[in-house]
Amino acid sequence: MNSEKFKKQMNFILEIDKAKNIFRQTYISNKKRKENDAEHSWHLAIMAFILSEHFDKEIDVLKVIKTVLMHDLVEIYAGDTYCYDMKANEDKEKREIEAAKKIYSLLPDEQREEYFKLWREFEEKSTPEAVFANILDRIQPILLNYATGGKAWKEHGIYNSQVLERNKFVLENNDEFSKYLFEIIENAVNEGMLKIK
Amino acid sequence: MNSEKFKKQMNFILEIDKAKNIFRQTYISNKKRKENDAEHSWHLAIMAFILSEHFDKEIDVLKVIKTVLMHDLVEIYAGDTYCYDMKANEDKEKREIEAAKKIYSLLPDEQREEYFKLWREFEEKSTPEAVFANILDRIQPILLNYATGGKAWKEHGIYNSQVLERNKFVLENNDEFSKYLFEIIENAVNEGMLKIK
Repeated sequence: MNSEKFKKQMNFILEIDKAKNIFRQTYISNKKRKENDAEHSWHLAIMAFILSEHFDKEIDVLKVIKTVLMHDLVEIYAGDTYCYDMKANEDKEKREIEAAKKIYSLLPDEQREEYFKLWREFEEKSTPEAVFANILDRIQPILLNYATGGKAWKEHGIYNSQVLERNKFVLENNDEFSKYLFEIIENAVNEGMLKIK
Repeated sequence: MNSEKFKKQMNFILEIDKAKNIFRQTYISNKKRKENDAEHSWHLAIMAFILSEHFDKEIDVLKVIKTVLMHDLVEIYAGDTYCYDMKANEDKEKREIEAAKKIYSLLPDEQREEYFKLWREFEEKSTPEAVFANILDRIQPILLNYATGGKAWKEHGIYNSQVLERNKFVLENNDEFSKYLFEIIENAVNEGMLKIK
């Protein structure tokens, strides 16, 4: 017989399978369907170790990876809130805190506390690891949006100013990530993928 | 302008998006569709740090996570080979080595070498990290198979002896993972999800 702890952990592992059914607004690169939270998080985790050398602060890469792999688990109960949907964003924090308590409470105490804390730090961008995780979380959909000819941006009629405003914290530094974002946004405007305002 | 290195890495990040279109035989827990490689790898990476305490050897968890996140990238070019398809498994190694060279060659030299090596170690189970990654790679589809009433096993008419044989290396130890597997296989037989031979 397995220990109670192991059973509890496996129950959590099964529950988070539901993240594979939470679809985001971004399309995958073949343009045929939208991306789900599990796929998005997988992509961010690989970016975390492939690109960490370009982040200008000392970071614990394992912590970044844990953060990005789990940052969207709250959406299993709270749903995906499109970043440019102002109304849905009003009560997003309250809905997500409840959801976080629910999902992480499936874990043994120590892990529950560790991962709830990582999620809060991510939301608040309160550690270097959380800032880097947020940068990756912004870069990845922009990569896919641009690669799909701006499909999701066009569907929602997004303006360059909205993308610039949302990604202000990435653009503050003069690093590879800000250069990448500036260039993609400029190209997206020139190629008619983003509206101008 | 971004550095050549950063551009190369982002090109790799875009290319691996294709893993989201490589579907496996296992169904996700809602039974509605099969799981793809990106989702599967995401699931394994979370299991790696949630369950690492139960593995009986000292391991570098970050190395396990890198391994599982990338272990199926070869399938972007080599396709998914169902583990119980003996014919397709005959030339699997040759196809996958070519595919690994192709995908990892998109990365800068140092990363190309690191990740190609991790993939070979995974295939050969030649380090404790690779063994643990393989255990997770076996446990996860068994969790989903059992949770979906044995859907994929039934579709392929799988026998308990096939599952036992394939997972022999997991069952050798008397740990949480082997206990879990024995119990699931026994239950699956009793509940008619696996045939008996």
